[in-house]
Amino acid sequence: MKNYKITIQYDGSRYKGWQVQKSTDMTIQGKLQSVLSQMVGYEVEVIGSGRTDAGVHALGQVANFHIPDQFSAQEVIEYLNQYLPMDIAVIDIEEVDERFHASFSAVEKTYVYRIHTSTIQNVFERKYMYDYTEKLNVEAMREAANEMIGTHDFMAFCGNKKMKKSTVRTVSNIEIEEKDGEIQISYTGDGFLQQMIRIMTGTLIEVGNGSKAVSEIKSIIESKDRANAGYTVPAEGLILKSVKYCIKFEF
Amino acid sequence: MKNYKITIQYDGSRYKGWQVQKSTDMTIQGKLQSVLSQMVGYEVEVIGSGRTDAGVHALGQVANFHIPDQFSAQEVIEYLNQYLPMDIAVIDIEEVDERFHASFSAVEKTYVYRIHTSTIQNVFERKYMYDYTEKLNVEAMREAANEMIGTHDFMAFCGNKKMKKSTVRTVSNIEIEEKDGEIQISYTGDGFLQQMIRIMTGTLIEVGNGSKAVSEIKSIIESKDRANAGYTVPAEGLILKSVKYCIKFEF
Repeated sequence: MKNYKITIQYDGSRYKGWQVQKSTDMTIQGKLQSVLSQMVGYEVEVIGSGRTDAGVHALGQVANFHIPDQFSAQEVIEYLNQYLPMDIAVIDIEEVDERFHASFSAVEKTYVYRIHTSTIQNVFERKYMYDYTEKLNVEAMREAANEMIGTHDFMAFCGNKKMKKSTVRTVSNIEIEEKDGEIQISYTGDGFLQQMIRIMTGTLIEVGNGSKAVSEIKSIIESKDRANAGYTVPAEGLILKSVKYCIKFEF
Repeated sequence: MKNYKITIQYDGSRYKGWQVQKSTDMTIQGKLQSVLSQMVGYEVEVIGSGRTDAGVHALGQVANFHIPDQFSAQEVIEYLNQYLPMDIAVIDIEEVDERFHASFSAVEKTYVYRIHTSTIQNVFERKYMYDYTEKLNVEAMREAANEMIGTHDFMAFCGNKKMKKSTVRTVSNIEIEEKDGEIQISYTGDGFLQQMIRIMTGTLIEVGNGSKAVSEIKSIIESKDRANAGYTVPAEGLILKSVKYCIKFEF
């Protein structure tokens, strides 16, 4: 068997998220599994670096799967791109060590949240941004973001109330860039809880519009109470940009 | 009365082109006129720099219209962007001399045609490109494009068989750029006939795939016969990038 690692882009607008579901075939994992299963003749499991929520996009999602030796990397990527829907593309493929696991081996992920602040529509990219036209104090947002960086229990920023596993994560960097009618917030960390980035972004927006103070961030984290953090911004502005792996797993 | 010049972006996918039609309200001119008429309380005519066909997009279409003095530029652009559909945006407005006419005053237009050559989908921009995955000889296409530059009777490249006005146009530049899974062809000229750029692009593609020779271009132009030129590529890859005006009309 060969273990293939693939890099995937998708416009998540039409999908119910990454993870396969019984009630719908509109998931990214489901589409990939169905095309690969058709190719090899039996059910193939595709392991993603992590789940993305309904409506979230990806520039560099990573996944892996094991299939028989007879399929070359070139054949697999061509087959996938021929049969996948137009809004899912496999942009890279490589054979990796059999121990490579897209989720367990991941050491760092970067997400970008795009906030469209202009009253003038970006007609070509409107589906990949969240419209927010009230005035935002970006400097205050940067200060609040700095309070979020580090290793913390991010329970207050977790959308899953029944989360039983550890909610401790390390956010290594948050960068806020203003450009051409939009604000882009990049989050880098070892992993993110369900809706964590959307809640962090909502919290930063509330700091930006003055309804929360920078000084509150620390106590919001410490409270571990979801009710103290900001609102959950819509999925459409969120893009999984890249996933990093330990070099030793590649060959 | 004030004469306003506006710059417009649109994703043309849903529209039947620029020009207002009796049979449908899905035209760019129609949408602009209807919002402006609602604002001023009577029917306003919007003059475009030229018509774009059904499905063609714009990064910098230009138009003008005359409305009463009481409406400031800021009010007009805000009103337009509030009531126009999401896929049409007014990105700039300025008051201009009363003699400014978006079509007659135009001295130069630049269009870009995007050919997507990779078998890997561009999931975010797929609606703005024409998929063509056969191998193209870009060097031969550049040579053929050079044969098209200049002042010629472009009758052979005109999609309107009943064209009664002059079909002489000056194409001042054609540039072909290869980048990241696509070929972009930029056309600059004093004006273009109906479907002219789509037929020129189809002809360049036929040179690129070897079904026409560079040496044929001159005789195709001289023949003035549409049947000798290449096929008409789809509208979805065509974008009106910019329109230039004589400085003297601005103030």
